[in-house]
Amino acid sequence: MTHSIAILGASGYTGAELVRLIATHPSMRIAALSAHSKAGQPMAQAFPHLRHLDLPDLVTIEEIDFSGIDLCFCALPHATSQAVIRDLPKTLKIVDLSADFRLRDPEEYARWYGGAHAALDQQAEAVYGLTEFYREQIRGARLVAGTGCNAATGQFALRPLIAGGLIDLDDIIIDLKTGVSGAGRSLRENLLHAELSEGAHAYGVGGTHRHLAEFDQEFSTIAGREVKVQFTPHLLPANRGILATVYVKGEAKDIHAALMDAYADEPFLQVLPFGQHPSTRHVRGSNFCHIGVSGDRIEGRAIVIAALDNLTKGSSGQALQNANLMLGEEETAGLMLAPVFP
Amino acid sequence: MTHSIAILGASGYTGAELVRLIATHPSMRIAALSAHSKAGQPMAQAFPHLRHLDLPDLVTIEEIDFSGIDLCFCALPHATSQAVIRDLPKTLKIVDLSADFRLRDPEEYARWYGGAHAALDQQAEAVYGLTEFYREQIRGARLVAGTGCNAATGQFALRPLIAGGLIDLDDIIIDLKTGVSGAGRSLRENLLHAELSEGAHAYGVGGTHRHLAEFDQEFSTIAGREVKVQFTPHLLPANRGILATVYVKGEAKDIHAALMDAYADEPFLQVLPFGQHPSTRHVRGSNFCHIGVSGDRIEGRAIVIAALDNLTKGSSGQALQNANLMLGEEETAGLMLAPVFP
Amino acid sequence: MTHSIAILGASGYTGAELVRLIATHPSMRIAALSAHSKAGQPMAQAFPHLRHLDLPDLVTIEEIDFSGIDLCFCALPHATSQAVIRDLPKTLKIVDLSADFRLRDPEEYARWYGGAHAALDQQAEAVYGLTEFYREQIRGARLVAGTGCNAATGQFALRPLIAGGLIDLDDIIIDLKTGVSGAGRSLRENLLHAELSEGAHAYGVGGTHRHLAEFDQEFSTIAGREVKVQFTPHLLPANRGILATVYVKGEAKDIHAALMDAYADEPFLQVLPFGQHPSTRHVRGSNFCHIGVSGDRIEGRAIVIAALDNLTKGSSGQALQNANLMLGEEETAGLMLAPVFP
Amino acid sequence: MTHSIAILGASGYTGAELVRLIATHPSMRIAALSAHSKAGQPMAQAFPHLRHLDLPDLVTIEEIDFSGIDLCFCALPHATSQAVIRDLPKTLKIVDLSADFRLRDPEEYARWYGGAHAALDQQAEAVYGLTEFYREQIRGARLVAGTGCNAATGQFALRPLIAGGLIDLDDIIIDLKTGVSGAGRSLRENLLHAELSEGAHAYGVGGTHRHLAEFDQEFSTIAGREVKVQFTPHLLPANRGILATVYVKGEAKDIHAALMDAYADEPFLQVLPFGQHPSTRHVRGSNFCHIGVSGDRIEGRAIVIAALDNLTKGSSGQALQNANLMLGEEETAGLMLAPVFP
Repeated sequence: MTHSIAILGASGYTGAELVRLIATHPSMRIAALSAHSKAGQPMAQAFPHLRHLDLPDLVTIEEIDFSGIDLCFCALPHATSQAVIRDLPKTLKIVDLSADFRLRDPEEYARWYGGAHAALDQQAEAVYGLTEFYREQIRGARLVAGTGCNAATGQFALRPLIAGGLIDLDDIIIDLKTGVSGAGRSLRENLLHAELSEGAHAYGVGGTHRHLAEFDQEFSTIAGREVKVQFTPHLLPANRGILATVYVKGEAKDIHAALMDAYADEPFLQVLPFGQHPSTRHVRGSNFCHIGVSGDRIEGRAIVIAALDNLTKGSSGQALQNANLMLGEEETAGLMLAPVFP
Repeated sequence: MTHSIAILGASGYTGAELVRLIATHPSMRIAALSAHSKAGQPMAQAFPHLRHLDLPDLVTIEEIDFSGIDLCFCALPHATSQAVIRDLPKTLKIVDLSADFRLRDPEEYARWYGGAHAALDQQAEAVYGLTEFYREQIRGARLVAGTGCNAATGQFALRPLIAGGLIDLDDIIIDLKTGVSGAGRSLRENLLHAELSEGAHAYGVGGTHRHLAEFDQEFSTIAGREVKVQFTPHLLPANRGILATVYVKGEAKDIHAALMDAYADEPFLQVLPFGQHPSTRHVRGSNFCHIGVSGDRIEGRAIVIAALDNLTKGSSGQALQNANLMLGEEETAGLMLAPVFP
Repeated sequence: MTHSIAILGASGYTGAELVRLIATHPSMRIAALSAHSKAGQPMAQAFPHLRHLDLPDLVTIEEIDFSGIDLCFCALPHATSQAVIRDLPKTLKIVDLSADFRLRDPEEYARWYGGAHAALDQQAEAVYGLTEFYREQIRGARLVAGTGCNAATGQFALRPLIAGGLIDLDDIIIDLKTGVSGAGRSLRENLLHAELSEGAHAYGVGGTHRHLAEFDQEFSTIAGREVKVQFTPHLLPANRGILATVYVKGEAKDIHAALMDAYADEPFLQVLPFGQHPSTRHVRGSNFCHIGVSGDRIEGRAIVIAALDNLTKGSSGQALQNANLMLGEEETAGLMLAPVFP
Repeated sequence: MTHSIAILGASGYTGAELVRLIATHPSMRIAALSAHSKAGQPMAQAFPHLRHLDLPDLVTIEEIDFSGIDLCFCALPHATSQAVIRDLPKTLKIVDLSADFRLRDPEEYARWYGGAHAALDQQAEAVYGLTEFYREQIRGARLVAGTGCNAATGQFALRPLIAGGLIDLDDIIIDLKTGVSGAGRSLRENLLHAELSEGAHAYGVGGTHRHLAEFDQEFSTIAGREVKVQFTPHLLPANRGILATVYVKGEAKDIHAALMDAYADEPFLQVLPFGQHPSTRHVRGSNFCHIGVSGDRIEGRAIVIAALDNLTKGSSGQALQNANLMLGEEETAGLMLAPVFP
């Protein structure tokens, strides 16, 4: 059986990545693609790399007939997404890739995103989309909230350690390096090639990045007490990839064993042999996450490093993984593409 | 039916690209992988991006039992390849990715490659592997010689124009820009990141690059007279991709029509609307070739620009396309992966 | 004696490059810097790499008192520049970096730039700023029009060949590769890092790029007849650098000799030994232009390759070189900085 | 007065960077350049970007007459350097850029570098070359040991905090990102463009990088007790630049004030306004170091970020700064070049 799929916000990078992945999915068919300023264009004009596919033209959301759609991906900007989803058919299965439905507590949402939520009913029913940890709820969900790409990376490194009581909860540092595409296709001076290539810098220093809200929510839930991490993102001169270097206090061997154990049956989470570490270029274009662990020369400290592709496992690949579950398909369908290296 | 595949020279980039593509091929299984200095290593050590696959370890060629192999890809260095292939079972189907069997005339081989050919019998039976133009011979071939990646790009732009008598045969210029991976994984100072990034330069200027031998052979055959093109390759600070800018004398509209016509049914060759031009980043990681045509302000001149990924359509993708034909599989099997952008 | 300098349009890349160069100039002092949307900002906010310098804040042009200014660089957008320069004091020495005063014929200007010129008096007095060929006029000029960066590169390769009658004037092809910074700091989707890195493409194909107007003007003047070249620019995934590969019909050795002879005393134009070719990374950040010549395997054809840094020798370095002449300073003052490699 | 300079190991990146800087130094003249495998070549062959300079050819060290040399830079590989310097004239002023003379304790040297030191007398007289903190000793020194580039970056961020007793000495984490050129021009697979571009990874994880020995030596000396930091270097896909993100426990405002105070008169160390952070691209090609400080949302924690160019302030620029002091020149001579951006 082939499922009819709509993608809202198809003129951005996560929208295009969804199309790329669905292109070789065995049981999905793209029935509608929406865009805002590019409505009316063929998809091949917005994204010439998808030229070989037989795709519907970009239209406005209003032009889409949702009655024949089995599942809708929303790859819209934050805030826009909640306004749109509120008005979509209440029975439509939705995977949202924005930040709008990630936080369960409306007050936390208001605090981090600077305003009241406009779709509280939908927020209440949304399931957090970190597939490996919310699999069963996702299977039965109507609305799944894709995680932040940085938030996913940090959680893959840390959840089993927190759950296992293996680390000091008051001293967790996530130093994260991310590729450029995570910032989207927006016209900002600091995203120009000449501004970004050939160097690196930190941003959101000091605990201001919004993905912290997800860390707080998830880690505190697991630990049963408040957990606040330090998190500093840096921008890399590369298009894809997140590398999270996580500093914790705990026994490195135990940490490695806990990750090995937790992810033993996970198709996409690969724990490297102890002392080996991942590279973003070895997961590029794929849904895999590689994780490494080392001890430090200072006893009782460990470093956990996780790498994934922000556009795939960090957003659109994760979204497709969730959609597979929601539609009763094999979880890995369309997602076993090998990384592209070099 | 699943075919058992061997890849000789699997520790280089074209070898790894074959593994990447075969990973999602519906009817191929990798049975053996060889390497020279890395023999004994797991493939995941040589190429960590392939870690998720269940692959045989790298072994020497001597350790491979070819009796159960249905088809062997040779991704060995030039000259090495002919010595190895000469001694492989005479009934084994082989797709060679080196330069060793591309030239039909042994004297031309000796002239361009600086020495006598060591496997003249095999050279005599080899079929030139430009799939779209040698499809029927490839289907029945035992040994197929993969084309040069630059040679493929230039031919896709030019063959229908020469065949159609549409251009001046004495005034063809191919100004080509190629990514770094085409030079392989060899340890040369001029391939270091610090030497190559952030700039561009020409090499092999003045008609010395060996892919000229393929242009000479093929274009002269088509034209029924000697055709000699000018060809200047340049190195781009990018890993993948070839962009060939071809300057010809002829009517641009006729040229565009001839390409549209010639490639109308080709799944991988995409001719853009007149006046539009391709980018290497829009074919990256895929088996597609995009081709554009414009006229010039000077009447009677035209520019044809072709883009492909040197590791995919330029070598390993082409090799797999040929292998599909040789094994009676669908030509496009395993090759419809969409390009990875950004 | 120290000259007081104003830079209009200092928030763009050519403006910043002027500041960088003047920072170590022995006899210039920056007295005023203008910007449009960034007026009011310290220069260190617009360009943090200039933080160590004691610079005036960015102001609007109206706020500048030109009475104490010895020379003014205009690094404003095309069309804006002519409107501004028309109203500047008529005795103020000006080096303009825009396209507005490059063409001597107002009709040609109107044809290529799509509208009538707004400052015909100034256009009439402007001297074309290709220093090595207009040195004496520049010395006495009040208003010098900086050349196009692509136009400069092509002319360095071709002027002595045309002047010497060494090449076929009806068959000149300039295949040019340029870095990203030439497109300026403007917010355009196709200048984003994610859109530009890791690939290459052509633009302005077929004789539409405006720098052709300069080639036409200059080459026709030298030859004493109409000369029209073919010119195809390509965008490189690098910030700085232009590489022009020029295909001509003529004797390569004679061409090399003519270039050696013409540039023997030029401090910035370096002709390489016959058969050697330049790389953009070897002129990066400097005012040097490297030029190489080879013959082709086809007799009577030659390839000339020129490399320079578009922001330095292609615009701001050239502008400073001209300003030095206009102010009676040593032509090379502030410009002998070695290229930055790697 | 002009000083005669020799550079040993001039075919590597730090050697070339010394030549680049000395090219515009007002009172230095390069009298001799040595290389090993490239001895006999003109410098312009090893480094075409230096083509415009009138430089001596590369020779072996044995061929150099040191009697006329005022100061010698040694840019040789570790271990080689000590063997060479042991045999140089005992009165020759030397700035060594290798790791050989950085550690004062021979046992520490043996422990980190895996063998006994071969020039203990010279080691005993060597002064540690972190100019801003050893200025007076360097002025009178005969042999100065250039610091590690990573070690310099971390120390600029941390020394005043340790000296001022402002941070918890048992909980210091340096997460460092470095460009490729720091690894030198050696032929290693993991330094190829295709292996390094478009991604990032950590190396030397867990306290094994040799620059830790310098941190230990210096920080323990300042603190008057053993101080051991955590230090994880990462490789960036960029040629130049180090960004050190330093996590400490202390009051951010006090830390910022201490750095402002300590570096108030330093020409090359620029402390940014509180809450602003540096980028490697804004110090590229220059001798400046930019430092930023922020507090964290967790009280009592601070993040200090330092950026410099590993080839300039991290090695060759520092070396020249030291040489200026040793020769009685202005400390900043030849070093006020502005960063090259973009």
